[in-house]
Amino acid sequence: MDIHPTAIISEKAIIGSNVKIGAYTIIYDNVEISENTTIEAFCEIGVSNHLSNGEKLYIGSNSHIRSHSIFYEGSIFLDSLITGHRVTVREKIKAGENLQIGTLSDLQGHCEIGNFVRLHSNVHIGQHSKIGNCVWIFPYVVLTNDPHPPSNTMLGVTVEEYAVIATMSVILPGATISKGCLIAAHSSVKGMTEEDMVYAGSPAKKICAASKIKLKDDSGDAYPWTKHFHRGYPDSLVKKWMDEEVQTDDKK
Amino acid sequence: MDIHPTAIISEKAIIGSNVKIGAYTIIYDNVEISENTTIEAFCEIGVSNHLSNGEKLYIGSNSHIRSHSIFYEGSIFLDSLITGHRVTVREKIKAGENLQIGTLSDLQGHCEIGNFVRLHSNVHIGQHSKIGNCVWIFPYVVLTNDPHPPSNTMLGVTVEEYAVIATMSVILPGATISKGCLIAAHSSVKGMTEEDMVYAGSPAKKICAASKIKLKDDSGDAYPWTKHFHRGYPDSLVKKWMDEEVQTDDKK
Amino acid sequence: MDIHPTAIISEKAIIGSNVKIGAYTIIYDNVEISENTTIEAFCEIGVSNHLSNGEKLYIGSNSHIRSHSIFYEGSIFLDSLITGHRVTVREKIKAGENLQIGTLSDLQGHCEIGNFVRLHSNVHIGQHSKIGNCVWIFPYVVLTNDPHPPSNTMLGVTVEEYAVIATMSVILPGATISKGCLIAAHSSVKGMTEEDMVYAGSPAKKICAASKIKLKDDSGDAYPWTKHFHRGYPDSLVKKWMDEEVQTDDKK
Repeated sequence: MDIHPTAIISEKAIIGSNVKIGAYTIIYDNVEISENTTIEAFCEIGVSNHLSNGEKLYIGSNSHIRSHSIFYEGSIFLDSLITGHRVTVREKIKAGENLQIGTLSDLQGHCEIGNFVRLHSNVHIGQHSKIGNCVWIFPYVVLTNDPHPPSNTMLGVTVEEYAVIATMSVILPGATISKGCLIAAHSSVKGMTEEDMVYAGSPAKKICAASKIKLKDDSGDAYPWTKHFHRGYPDSLVKKWMDEEVQTDDKK
Repeated sequence: MDIHPTAIISEKAIIGSNVKIGAYTIIYDNVEISENTTIEAFCEIGVSNHLSNGEKLYIGSNSHIRSHSIFYEGSIFLDSLITGHRVTVREKIKAGENLQIGTLSDLQGHCEIGNFVRLHSNVHIGQHSKIGNCVWIFPYVVLTNDPHPPSNTMLGVTVEEYAVIATMSVILPGATISKGCLIAAHSSVKGMTEEDMVYAGSPAKKICAASKIKLKDDSGDAYPWTKHFHRGYPDSLVKKWMDEEVQTDDKK
Repeated sequence: MDIHPTAIISEKAIIGSNVKIGAYTIIYDNVEISENTTIEAFCEIGVSNHLSNGEKLYIGSNSHIRSHSIFYEGSIFLDSLITGHRVTVREKIKAGENLQIGTLSDLQGHCEIGNFVRLHSNVHIGQHSKIGNCVWIFPYVVLTNDPHPPSNTMLGVTVEEYAVIATMSVILPGATISKGCLIAAHSSVKGMTEEDMVYAGSPAKKICAASKIKLKDDSGDAYPWTKHFHRGYPDSLVKKWMDEEVQTDDKK
């Protein structure tokens, strides 16, 4: 372990082998940090909260939480979590492995997140959101949940696997972004969407099939993005995408 | 008092009884913090600034400022202020009691805020804004002030009591959001609005009376929201709302 | 030098004369801070990163970095840099003198910024952006770069000198905001623009010449803004603007 002398670590916290903890970081009581994880400076890990029912914060192995970040107790993050700086992550989140959370993002808790999800900078995930595997969400996107604010009704947003939501879009309460959809920048989406389609505008309208968008370098289709974008994914997953691709081509 | 040993507290600061101050927090000279208030870790309270004319920062009793927050000197917050994390609050703000300021919100100072106002996460309040009692402002809303940027003209926004501004709306310089209005998500509002109406779009248009919106659970009207949403308000205020409601029904 | 005793300063860092460093701030190895510069509390200066190729962070003289800010190694900022709080500034930025970066702004690195540029609060500058001299960018503006996200194609945005981008606008990948343009609030801009014109809407359309907009106080044209807004600029630059103005008037 490599713990900076100014870090304040509760004796009750469970800290795995080879964990690094930066200067001035505070680790509270109800926390388990798995091996080979790095927590940078000025973080607070395991903030207690009456909404977490005493459940602990679990951070999987090989994770990297950048400086000035805040995690509440009561959430689970499987292995290889990576964050930017100043992320705020509340209670009651169940997240899969290899989640990336960009700088300044704010996860309000009470939500489910799949594997290999990428949240870019300054993304706001409202309570009761459900986010599938391999989803991409870009800067200044907000997933909302209150259909007539302020109220006690919570209608979370669903984002299905491989969907992409571009910069500064608002997903309205109860909306579903279906598998493989692309939501263009600066859109506002309500209700249901169809799989693998592009939606744009405020209110958003269906534009075309995502597969109609070509790469700028003329090297082929831009969507599904799994055809050409593999950075940061494990070889096993990329191989699966390639195999599916061959099968799809065979069917044509 | 419960002051963490790493906190740095000016001897000139006035700290009431039963105040808690978290690790690594800095309290500067020109500050008065009232009794039973909690300031969490990594805060800076009372940052000095030539624009504050040497006026102090006053934080009322029973307040709770969450970690990584920054308050300048020269503002007044009455009792029961509650903030999220990383709020930035500048000089020359006069705020009533029971104000809530969400995580990452940025109050640029030189503004007036009523009682029981709720600012959700990542709200930006430009200088010269006037916000009435019981207003709700949701994430990524910006209240602007410069009609032809950059200029030396400052036309602040007015938000009247009980108005609601939904996610990611921009309120343009000099606009007035009238009493009881609902501004739909992702709107852009200019000029005057009529009381108790819904506005939506960019540029926003008048859609209908707010009272036409029904609760999703069919239990009645969604607006005025005081009919059904009472969480966090004192019993005396809720009773007043209920009494007015009966009178309104009697008139029908 | 005025270094707070809780600051953690690498012996390898080069610190000029009369530099002030606030409480709990961390200065890493690969940093040069020039004379008369102030770094406030809770900052991290010179975060190491494999993308910076070992290049140092250079901060010019007479700069002021406000609290909770993070700068990576591998960028250059000439004299008189001023930041708000909690700015995040990544590697491979070349910035001119007198840059202002507002609270919460996020510069993703790998970009060029001219002299006298003003970024207001919560501005997001994507990689490969090029920003000319005397540009103004207002809150919640995002400069994007990926034409079909996620992809390996990076088409940065160009913002030419004296252009103004108002609140909560998205500049789409590869777009050029031409010299002296005004982008109205809540717009979404694609492709090329013409010099000195106003664009508004999502998608943005050309509205009129910027010079058609008059100041609210009837004192003249609002654009070019150099006619009436001089706060914070050096006398030599303002004199140049005034001389050009006289020449333009002479030609009429």
